[in-house]
Amino acid sequence: MKGNFTFCNPTRLHFGTDAMSALAKELANFGPTVMLSYGGGSIKRNGIYDQVAAALAAAGKTVVEDGGVMPNPTVEKLREGAAKAKACNADLILAVGGGSTIDYAKAVSVSAWCDEDPWEKYFIRFEEPSCRIVPVGAILTMAGTGSEMNGGSVISNHAAGLKIGKVFGPDVFPKFSILNPEFTFTVPRRHMVAGIFDVMSHILEQYFSGDDDSTSDYIAEGLMRSLVASSRAAVANAQDYEARSNIMWTATWALNTLIAMGKPTDWEVHMLGQAVGAITDATHGMTLSAVSLPYYRHIMPYGLKKFARFAENVWGVASAGRSPEAVAADGLAAFEAWMREIGVAMSISELGATEEMLPKIADATFILTGGYKTLTRDDVLSILRKSL
Amino acid sequence: MKGNFTFCNPTRLHFGTDAMSALAKELANFGPTVMLSYGGGSIKRNGIYDQVAAALAAAGKTVVEDGGVMPNPTVEKLREGAAKAKACNADLILAVGGGSTIDYAKAVSVSAWCDEDPWEKYFIRFEEPSCRIVPVGAILTMAGTGSEMNGGSVISNHAAGLKIGKVFGPDVFPKFSILNPEFTFTVPRRHMVAGIFDVMSHILEQYFSGDDDSTSDYIAEGLMRSLVASSRAAVANAQDYEARSNIMWTATWALNTLIAMGKPTDWEVHMLGQAVGAITDATHGMTLSAVSLPYYRHIMPYGLKKFARFAENVWGVASAGRSPEAVAADGLAAFEAWMREIGVAMSISELGATEEMLPKIADATFILTGGYKTLTRDDVLSILRKSL
Repeated sequence: MKGNFTFCNPTRLHFGTDAMSALAKELANFGPTVMLSYGGGSIKRNGIYDQVAAALAAAGKTVVEDGGVMPNPTVEKLREGAAKAKACNADLILAVGGGSTIDYAKAVSVSAWCDEDPWEKYFIRFEEPSCRIVPVGAILTMAGTGSEMNGGSVISNHAAGLKIGKVFGPDVFPKFSILNPEFTFTVPRRHMVAGIFDVMSHILEQYFSGDDDSTSDYIAEGLMRSLVASSRAAVANAQDYEARSNIMWTATWALNTLIAMGKPTDWEVHMLGQAVGAITDATHGMTLSAVSLPYYRHIMPYGLKKFARFAENVWGVASAGRSPEAVAADGLAAFEAWMREIGVAMSISELGATEEMLPKIADATFILTGGYKTLTRDDVLSILRKSL
Repeated sequence: MKGNFTFCNPTRLHFGTDAMSALAKELANFGPTVMLSYGGGSIKRNGIYDQVAAALAAAGKTVVEDGGVMPNPTVEKLREGAAKAKACNADLILAVGGGSTIDYAKAVSVSAWCDEDPWEKYFIRFEEPSCRIVPVGAILTMAGTGSEMNGGSVISNHAAGLKIGKVFGPDVFPKFSILNPEFTFTVPRRHMVAGIFDVMSHILEQYFSGDDDSTSDYIAEGLMRSLVASSRAAVANAQDYEARSNIMWTATWALNTLIAMGKPTDWEVHMLGQAVGAITDATHGMTLSAVSLPYYRHIMPYGLKKFARFAENVWGVASAGRSPEAVAADGLAAFEAWMREIGVAMSISELGATEEMLPKIADATFILTGGYKTLTRDDVLSILRKSL
């Protein structure tokens, strides 16, 4: 690996069927007022809310309810949550849910005591927090975003037609996260596979970049092999604990900065997917799957060596005596077959996008420069058209 | 993965050719008195000592010299260092060296203010520290032990014929570590390959255990593939930065608890190697290589599935239509060929062990129960005899 970097990840993770038993000890590290952030009613139906409420009561905490965090958390909800956290002087924001809820909690944590508008400061100007940061703890109910062990936060501004991710530093990472794979058993199948594809996309977008021999790429290959094996098992049986636990753990390590260390990263699929999401409000993982194959087939000639390696090391494509082009194409074909097998969205039309929307989606697509090919606006439009 | 676990690794790592530039900022987090622990004179010859001394002077620190840490740090040196750290009321122990120096610094950190004898408390009774812990920072000059991002500390008691490792918790992990792969360029070839084998052994001893499908094993396979590729490059050219940086990074992740998460671990090769080391004082990595093949061939029938997987996924052994025994044997043959290629010790005789010493080495070998086969004393003696 060539790059200079600092790695620091202070989040404490409690993993497994007994993970919730660590909550009492974690709560003892914080003051009396806890803002409890969560999404819709699913945690009330599956009993997780009751477990958390009991632990908070036993710890003598004052609980400020903050439900209704939506799947693509909005800037309006962020402003409301920030005002609430400030008003109650929250000592901890406890996020119970998937990546959206935890992303939201992190955004609130740096906004409650911020004198400026958080959308402008963090998501438009990409500045770092300069105010008091309210600590965040997380109880994860869905595997995918990796938000439980990183500083990422994606917020949607529908009025502006924008969905933007900001990556905060270790001060904003959750102080602790509770990961019980059983909590993911009741996630609807469509959201489970969207989460799985989100994880795959995180890995791929850090893998398809750079030209040196880097340990990070070997770790990425290991994570992908594990994910492919476990996704097949989980699709066959949603209650397969071994598979669900591997998926949850892979999700965490796919996006906690480890596999990006010492190398450039791409992230253009997320830019395209987030632009689709900003216009359609579709499920995040499905926006990524819908644009991935046109994108990767578009950039393959520029990173051919890595695409051939992907084919061999992740999908077991035989390479002896064959051209790298043929090997690489077989790798993407195997990737496509796996996508169809687990059942992710294969087009943006399925997500509600139309030909007429493409210029607007292209406008909302940020162009990044870390991958094998920096896209032009024509490239973006061509990829979106092939994604229809 | 089946297990319940907590993962927490708070060490901040600065990696790359510019890593030393982070030292000034790190030093600002600690009080005025720094105990500077290091080994022999190599850091004075290669200029690293001068760089560190300049940073300490610029930070206005009072430096208490603590050189002479030996390759297998002794309990006598530990007691001397603990008394020194207490006498000067050290605010930071800055360890400059390889794993031995950092292991020693961690042992001193929990011994300076300990009212009991540290050997008895930590290495015989395996207790946790209950006293004030002096913070440790590390500047790594040799890749291998992973001591830069874990709580491990191995101390030798030659009078008792014992070399024992204690694994402390995150409070004892280095607060920061500085990893500049260029610092390893001047490590003598024999020590470089001993370090490489130590890394391989760390990975294998966490890999050869458990029977479930676990993400940890896939990550381990990725680390091994990276290490094999980079070790060959580094043996061909010791100044190959790409290879040396991959080796250094792989060493860190091979033993910072990640790949042990959610699964049992073996560690019997370290028990055998440390017993050899306690009697012969041989280089740690070489004691591991000298016993590995007899050990793994001995336990292979009990973990056949994993040994066949090792052959396929790490060494590319073809498996179609072949028995797992044949595939697994080919994997160990490929492993042996790699060991001979990089030039590690292939027998304990080369390290000074004799037939007469075997009962004493067997007496000093702790028997662990996490691997595929719990050894009997006869097993230990048989493995040691085959290692001669």
